[in-house]
This record gives sequence, structure tokens and C-alpha cells, in this order.
Amino acid sequence: MRYEELTIEGRNAVLEAFRSGKTVDKLFVQDGCKDGPVLSITREARKQDTIIQYVAKERLDQMSETGKHQGVIAMAAAYTYASVEEILQAAKDRKEPPFLFLLDGIEDPHNLGAIIRTANLAGAHGVIIPKHRAAGLTATVARTSAGALNYTPVAKVTNLAATIENLKKEGMWFVCADMAGELMYRLNLTGPIGLVVGSEGSGVSRLVQEKCDMTAAIPMKGNLDSLNASVAAGVLAYEIVRQRMQ
Amino acid sequence: MRYEELTIEGRNAVLEAFRSGKTVDKLFVQDGCKDGPVLSITREARKQDTIIQYVAKERLDQMSETGKHQGVIAMAAAYTYASVEEILQAAKDRKEPPFLFLLDGIEDPHNLGAIIRTANLAGAHGVIIPKHRAAGLTATVARTSAGALNYTPVAKVTNLAATIENLKKEGMWFVCADMAGELMYRLNLTGPIGLVVGSEGSGVSRLVQEKCDMTAAIPMKGNLDSLNASVAAGVLAYEIVRQRMQ
Repeated sequence: MRYEELTIEGRNAVLEAFRSGKTVDKLFVQDGCKDGPVLSITREARKQDTIIQYVAKERLDQMSETGKHQGVIAMAAAYTYASVEEILQAAKDRKEPPFLFLLDGIEDPHNLGAIIRTANLAGAHGVIIPKHRAAGLTATVARTSAGALNYTPVAKVTNLAATIENLKKEGMWFVCADMAGELMYRLNLTGPIGLVVGSEGSGVSRLVQEKCDMTAAIPMKGNLDSLNASVAAGVLAYEIVRQRMQ
Repeated sequence: MRYEELTIEGRNAVLEAFRSGKTVDKLFVQDGCKDGPVLSITREARKQDTIIQYVAKERLDQMSETGKHQGVIAMAAAYTYASVEEILQAAKDRKEPPFLFLLDGIEDPHNLGAIIRTANLAGAHGVIIPKHRAAGLTATVARTSAGALNYTPVAKVTNLAATIENLKKEGMWFVCADMAGELMYRLNLTGPIGLVVGSEGSGVSRLVQEKCDMTAAIPMKGNLDSLNASVAAGVLAYEIVRQRMQ
């Protein structure tokens, strides 16, 4: 495991990162470390809803690049996250019906980067990712997004199903990808829409799927079950683009 | 550089690989090695049109896993290649107009694997790749194809432009991807078709592009220039699928 420039090590550096408002994706704390400075750090982490993981000293030693982690290593986002409201505002500013990507547990940073790149080129206003069990905005994501991270805002939410519920109240429709759904060409994918893409392994989770208004299937004419997650996102996104352009 | 189980080292092993008909993607020979056994190996390599690269001993030492390369290292394909004729026969057997992917210099094995996976699911009959300046069927490609390599034949040709020329005589049409082209929704992409996808960096080469009947553009509504190569291939392939299904 290497996190390059995104790893912040040592008590002062980590506390400073939190206090300066840097987005920390994950905080690793050494098992049993409960002294004052460490408690200050975990308090800050909880305030910002950062995921805290308690690990053995050996694991921290392995992750550490300086060898001086003092029991804490923080993984900071390469880019800052936007809020869902900012994404909706971007749609309003462009006088377009909102078009969002919601990623339900994409864990491969290469796929995440490629999908953010696709979201940019398909004219989506932003991407929403969950806080848990998903890749964050690391250096690899930034690189594979080919610069899209500089233009397309990414928001991180605690509960994807609850976010969908809230956005539905604002008049948005949600379509998720699943091979058991209706053929995508037959669905009406125009208007304010959120495209929900599932993880590489297990697709869209049941809870999230239940919140969606439509389930879209990509025609599968071969021997396999599913496309690569970023290819599937691209194919669906461009069906939305096609329908919007008509 | 690691090639896992695909690296064949040492004079006897390499010569045996050639004689048994194994597909060798590339042969590395130590600079200045010109004794009998090495000349036999390079003669076999030339017979099979394998790319030969002369490198310094240090480079071979670095690539070697056994430390006993004796001046020659061969990189064998994880999978055997098909011929273009076999791919056309597969279309005939399925009583479908041929639908081929032609990849003009895809160098990233992850992209190559994802594209072969897409070719399988889009119902294409095969994939054609060039011998030079492109990724071959390595273990990484096999893995990222998610098993598609077991179903979708891949052919390797010396000259992609000449292959297109020959296939046009058999009644096929070729469309290549380029943002300067006609919007893909406005083209007629039905019938016997070859989809030409360019490399990540420089797109479809001029020579190949000139052989194509149509140039298709994916609508670009964002700030960047291009989609990830495997995403672009997926979006175009599924526009062909959509038109064929109508």
C-alpha cells in the first residue's frame, strides 16, 4: 500500500490537516492509543465524519513512509469534495435539468477516474459517491480522470439511499443499471435524472435499487454477465445524452 | 516489468516454444549474441514474424526471473490468436453480418482487456489488433477481459490498413472514432461493419483513418477532449448495437 503525497503522518500534521479543513478520507489509529493528542485527533475526525480505522502498529509501520507516524496516519483527498447542493446549483447555472452520476460502491480508483471523465464529457453536473466501501478522490483517481476532477464536482454522502430520497423530492428521477431491467432504449431517460451505477462485483445494492424509479438494462449479446463498470456507466450515460439531444 | 508465467527464458526453452507453435509476441536478444543457437532462434522468430528486440545484457538481467536467460527471453501470448478468416467464419456460422473491432495501437493492457470484454457483450465476432506498437494478449489482458478471451477471437495482423482494404473487398464497411467526424447518431452503422478504435494518446492513425468509410464522433459536452479508450469503444459499439436492434 502506498498513498504517495496523500498520506499525512504524525500527530501534529494530522491534527493540523483536520483543523485546516482538509478533507481526510480515512484515519488510521494504532490500537490502544488513547492519550490526549490522539483523542483530540479522533474528536476532530468524528466532527468531520471521517472513517476511523484502528489497526495494529505493524500495519501503520508498513503504511508509513517516514517511519514516524506516532500512531496516526491520515489519508487526505487529492481534491476537495463539493456538496450535493453545489452540484444542483451548477445545473441551475447552466439552465439545464440536473444530470447526476451516483456511484454505489466503485472500489477501483481507475474505474472511478474513468467514470468522472465520462461524467464530464456526457455533460453531467456532478458525481455523488458514498463515504463507505468506495474509492475516494486519490491521486490515481485524479490521474485517470484525465483532468475531469478540475471541472466536474464530486460530492461524498453518508447514505446514498437517503440522498436519492431527498433528490426525488426535488423532482429528480433515478435510473439504475441492472441486467434484469427494461432495455435502456425503451425507457424515457430525459428530464432531471440521476444515473446510479453499481460496484464491479455486486452491482447496485438492494436498498439503493429500491429507491430508483427505473432499472435500465444494457443489451447483452455475448457470453459474459457484465461490462466493465466504467464502460457500463459510459454506455448508459450516452443513452441519456442521445435521448436528451433528440 | 514482470510478465509472470508468460516469460520464457533460456535458449532451449525459447527454441522449443517457437518449434511447438506457441505464439511469441516478442523476442528479446542480448546485443552482440550471434552464435549458432541464437541464430537458430532468431531464424524461427523471423519465420513466425515475431518482433525481435536487441537489448543490453543489463535489461535482460532485469527482466529475467530465473537469472538464467542465456541471452534470450521470449514473451509468449497467454492465449492463441485467431486468423481474420476464422473471425469472419464465426459471423457466417451465426448467420449475422460481420461485426468486428479493430484496435489501432491500444497500448494499455487494461484497456485492451476491457475492450475485448465489450466486444463480447456487444455481440462482435472478433477483435483485430496490429502486431506493432500495441499490447498483446498478456495475462493482464486475459484477467481484465473477465474471461471474454475464451469466447471472442483476437487476430493479430501486420498491417491494419491493408487488412481493412481486404475486408472492404468482402463487402465490409469501416467506421472510425474521431471527434472531427459526423455525430454517430446520424450515421448508418448497420450491416457488415468494422469499428476502428484509436490509441489512448493519438487516436486513429492517418493511414488507417483514410481507409475508413465513415468517421463517427461521440458528442462531447464537457471540458475534456476525449473519453477513456475503452469507454469510447463501448459507447460506439453500443450505438452500433442500438441501430442493429431497430
